[in-house]
Amino acid sequence: MNCTQPTDITFSLKGFAARGGLTHHHVDGFGIAFFEDKACRLFIDNQPAYRSPVAEMLKHYPIQSKNVIAHIRKASQGAMRLQNCHPFMRELWGRHWIFAHNGELKNFRPSLNGDYQPVGDTDSERAFCHMMQMLRKRFPQSQPLLPLLFDELADITEEIASYGVYNFLMSNGQALFAFCSTNLYYLVRQWPFSVAHLIDTDVAIDFSDVTTPDDRVAVIATAPLTDNESWIQLSPGDLMMFEQGCLMQSVKVTIEEAVQEANAKETVCV
Amino acid sequence: MNCTQPTDITFSLKGFAARGGLTHHHVDGFGIAFFEDKACRLFIDNQPAYRSPVAEMLKHYPIQSKNVIAHIRKASQGAMRLQNCHPFMRELWGRHWIFAHNGELKNFRPSLNGDYQPVGDTDSERAFCHMMQMLRKRFPQSQPLLPLLFDELADITEEIASYGVYNFLMSNGQALFAFCSTNLYYLVRQWPFSVAHLIDTDVAIDFSDVTTPDDRVAVIATAPLTDNESWIQLSPGDLMMFEQGCLMQSVKVTIEEAVQEANAKETVCV
Repeated sequence: MNCTQPTDITFSLKGFAARGGLTHHHVDGFGIAFFEDKACRLFIDNQPAYRSPVAEMLKHYPIQSKNVIAHIRKASQGAMRLQNCHPFMRELWGRHWIFAHNGELKNFRPSLNGDYQPVGDTDSERAFCHMMQMLRKRFPQSQPLLPLLFDELADITEEIASYGVYNFLMSNGQALFAFCSTNLYYLVRQWPFSVAHLIDTDVAIDFSDVTTPDDRVAVIATAPLTDNESWIQLSPGDLMMFEQGCLMQSVKVTIEEAVQEANAKETVCV
Repeated sequence: MNCTQPTDITFSLKGFAARGGLTHHHVDGFGIAFFEDKACRLFIDNQPAYRSPVAEMLKHYPIQSKNVIAHIRKASQGAMRLQNCHPFMRELWGRHWIFAHNGELKNFRPSLNGDYQPVGDTDSERAFCHMMQMLRKRFPQSQPLLPLLFDELADITEEIASYGVYNFLMSNGQALFAFCSTNLYYLVRQWPFSVAHLIDTDVAIDFSDVTTPDDRVAVIATAPLTDNESWIQLSPGDLMMFEQGCLMQSVKVTIEEAVQEANAKETVCV
């Protein structure tokens, strides 16, 4: 979620947490990160989201945030341990960065110089450490303007996406970056707001009751969370940057045809 | 808390959380970090611990851990914002590191090379970033054996402690490092276990009911948490390393007399 005003995610979380063991089989851990300015708090649990005490607490604690990334895990690489739970967090340029990956990279062993080292043993955390390392190498002093950062991110993403399925969400608390390797959808909720109804649990909310005309919220997910709103499907190779609840920039990253074909054959979790 | 077996901290947390606004005036944030092997999950909240939904959830969710660091904040430097809440977390040598500070450093502006940069604006996070940078500089490739690491930590601590009150707790999930600048106490609970009674709330537990003879738990705190156990007071300059619930190593760090006198005049939060 990326918004123009600090917003709570309790509605979406009700549907999303159900996918962690009730309506979907993502039972190998759960995590959610809430930015507040440059800092981020990250809640992870190696219990399935649908019965995690942490998820339960968050459903009733309306933390206000402009950037939220949540993840439910179905383990592909790496055991079901806390250190393998997404999202992952690192600090770069005096900001926290958060990363969650859906997919699987084959034989991806980047040369890590020690700036960022994985704590667990997932392909996902290796990819994140590599991205952080490359961004720091390219801009060693401080964070560049977001369009410049986005261009560099596109180059790094192209490199990593050649290793397999690499849908990801990433944020530094200012912008939310979303990459579609196989599956990703988004929608922007803005004035005039209306009723949204969750797919995974029979809960609806009338956003016109709880918003102002200045609110704008982008929600990005592996699969639509509601059944009565128009979700836009991304195409493989789409890298997008959301800021203030808007799609601010989009670029097509080249994914080789052979990789696309191989990815299409994968059973990708949704 | 540092233990030989994964242990839950729900008992101590009941007394500790009360200090965050009920029995003491530490109302400017709350945080607790639980290690599971090399990874750590960190729960922070900028609400006072005694009424934080996060603290409430944790009192009833017995997370098992061998190294736990908790902190309740009374702001001295840095506004009451999430980015200034302790403990702080960084990654070094493929492990999470956690740091909490009690005290205040005056005019401490270390030269940070970018390896670790503060996200917030506290003296505490600056000190932590400096310690991480110095440890990485001294051992760039990988983590040395703990005694070597401890020696280096003593040198860095001596440097920083000359800037003011620097009581700290730090852990990498293997060992817990504790430094007494002005105030710190510890005790080791081991067989034969007995009853402990909290100071801050009228709760007692008979540890002999919930332990095995192999358990051993070291608890380190700014002030004793129980009123019927023998807490050992550290002296200014004591740096200690706890491992497997034991005090494994201890060294006296030199604090200049002028600094000790100035520190003694400070109103230090307990």
